[in-house]
Amino acid sequence: MDTAAITPTLRWTGDSIEIIDQTRLPGELVLLDVRDVGSAVDAIERLAIRGAPALGVFGALALVVGLDEAQPDSLDAARELLEWLRHEIGDARPTAVNLRWAVDRTIDAALAVPELISAGTNTSDGGRGSADGDSASAGGLAELRQRLLDEALAIGAEDARACAEIGRLGRELLADATVIATHCNAGRLATVGTGTALGVVYAKAAAGEPVRVLAAETRPLLQGARLTAWELADAGIEVSVVADAAMASLIAAGEVDAVIVGADRIAANGDTANKVGTLAHALAAADAGIGFYIAAPTSTIDAALPSGECIAIEQRNPDEVHHAGGTRLTPVDAVAVNPAFDVTPARFITAIITDAGVLQPPYDRSIAQALAGAEPAGSGAGRC
Amino acid sequence: MDTAAITPTLRWTGDSIEIIDQTRLPGELVLLDVRDVGSAVDAIERLAIRGAPALGVFGALALVVGLDEAQPDSLDAARELLEWLRHEIGDARPTAVNLRWAVDRTIDAALAVPELISAGTNTSDGGRGSADGDSASAGGLAELRQRLLDEALAIGAEDARACAEIGRLGRELLADATVIATHCNAGRLATVGTGTALGVVYAKAAAGEPVRVLAAETRPLLQGARLTAWELADAGIEVSVVADAAMASLIAAGEVDAVIVGADRIAANGDTANKVGTLAHALAAADAGIGFYIAAPTSTIDAALPSGECIAIEQRNPDEVHHAGGTRLTPVDAVAVNPAFDVTPARFITAIITDAGVLQPPYDRSIAQALAGAEPAGSGAGRC
Repeated sequence: MDTAAITPTLRWTGDSIEIIDQTRLPGELVLLDVRDVGSAVDAIERLAIRGAPALGVFGALALVVGLDEAQPDSLDAARELLEWLRHEIGDARPTAVNLRWAVDRTIDAALAVPELISAGTNTSDGGRGSADGDSASAGGLAELRQRLLDEALAIGAEDARACAEIGRLGRELLADATVIATHCNAGRLATVGTGTALGVVYAKAAAGEPVRVLAAETRPLLQGARLTAWELADAGIEVSVVADAAMASLIAAGEVDAVIVGADRIAANGDTANKVGTLAHALAAADAGIGFYIAAPTSTIDAALPSGECIAIEQRNPDEVHHAGGTRLTPVDAVAVNPAFDVTPARFITAIITDAGVLQPPYDRSIAQALAGAEPAGSGAGRC
Repeated sequence: MDTAAITPTLRWTGDSIEIIDQTRLPGELVLLDVRDVGSAVDAIERLAIRGAPALGVFGALALVVGLDEAQPDSLDAARELLEWLRHEIGDARPTAVNLRWAVDRTIDAALAVPELISAGTNTSDGGRGSADGDSASAGGLAELRQRLLDEALAIGAEDARACAEIGRLGRELLADATVIATHCNAGRLATVGTGTALGVVYAKAAAGEPVRVLAAETRPLLQGARLTAWELADAGIEVSVVADAAMASLIAAGEVDAVIVGADRIAANGDTANKVGTLAHALAAADAGIGFYIAAPTSTIDAALPSGECIAIEQRNPDEVHHAGGTRLTPVDAVAVNPAFDVTPARFITAIITDAGVLQPPYDRSIAQALAGAEPAGSGAGRC
């Protein structure tokens, strides 16, 4: 992979966030320069930026954009602004847990500094009243901005490190696999690193190992056909798109060495929710006797959920099924059902490749060990 | 089902073939009046008419259209014309075995009449030279046309009877199933009867039994979203379209009672080739413990092929994967793989519902019994 030629999914320019507008892919590579809160929220809502880790970093950086745009004249005003941004940005997509988590973490980290709190308290008290008041406030505001930026960039760096570690471990694990099948997009367009499932592919390519990807198109929203096909070709990696319906036959025909997908939520027993269509590939892999792997950071594990049966499945707008690429496919009065995710039972999962190591069955034990001492990341939100 | 309201897939008007133009569905219900050979071949090639049984009947009727169009002035000229039509129509779609089979059967049946042969011989001899020559030839031509028409209509009647019998047997077998999942289109748009897989659905509906269909959209050509959704709604039967990728999750969630699909070719051991995507539904049904049924006339059984491994899988144009509804989905230089069919191993098939009875495992035995005494229908064309 010629990393020099790669356009980053998102990038902090110094005073704005530059992102690839993913709604224009694969037709055009259009960069958006996001320098106000309205544009940031709009980019999130219309999926110009997507993928849980990428959304988290983007939301955290949007706090700095919001501070620069509003130019509050006191720390009190800045704190008020941040509380508004916590909801304005953090809730722009209610199902994206990472977005709200990263926004909260960044605000809380920036404000958890005694000097800023006391400066703020003084200001709101009308306290000191010294000639230094304005410059103290200006200094505090500059420090607040720096702390927000530092935390946002730290979240991005952690995500990139997690991707790199997943890639490294996955490459070791899948040294003998050349043809990798995947679903949806768990690549650099979904993270600020090299991706999770595709992180393994990029690691193999970077090591000079032969690798070829079969990308399931991922109806209805076609993240495989649009995004995975685009980002791999952009990186010079061989990729073939197949209809979701065709993957089982290619696996059965022996044309796939391993299946690797990302995850939206992993229960304590290893059952994994991911983009709908994942389960069919897992069933085909199990029948054919090839490996089926989940690649995800440990933050995707929701240890509060005992099993996949507890994971609530989002039902999305049927219009997504009725259309493709803006064209109506079904009869005008047709009914459609559109579950966004499915749950692959742990018994079909060969291993879970995380930044904390490769987890093997039995997953209740390996997941508990991986999370030992770590703060539970999951919300436990579900049906159990 | 209000059969009075149903527009037939194809109909002999007396001097032309009226068909539903399936390329216009589901957007518009447009009827084509086919009254010349050029239009007939065009309709076959651009899939205005499709489905092996429907293609067979259409091709046979197109022989009568060809005779009427050319108006040969002797039986010899008529025979010459029929030999040309045998290839012109019969080879319009090389993979549609039924088309060539029905054209051959119709021509051979019409010519296998001693009077016509002798009349023809006399004419070519310049024989009798009697004043009755012209009227004898005219009478022979009229009889030839009638025999072609009778045979074509007989093939249609056989297809309709096979669909009805499959429907009757399937309804008995699936008395307790309400939610039926299916793939592609194995309905009245693929036959001149009520269809094979959907024949079972229509039989349930006609008997007043509750029935609801989950139609997998069937990428890349969307026969499920376009044709199955249209014909069931047109018949007043409840149908929901789902992405192919979503079917496994709905089956796993217990939302499907049984899966029924058609077949393109069934090997002697029961392994069944059908539209790509069928295998994934079969794997999901097996894992969930629900029934997975093939519905097909015995003419679909190719007893010359010992197993599914012998069935050659057609690789179709990758452009079908790159597009949906005329819109480009993938990056312009993307590569796609597009197998048109997959093979479901017999071990995943609960039963094969045919016009000669419901075949149960072990299929090598039940298939041999069903075909006992019958002329083998299959060509044996394959990789074994």
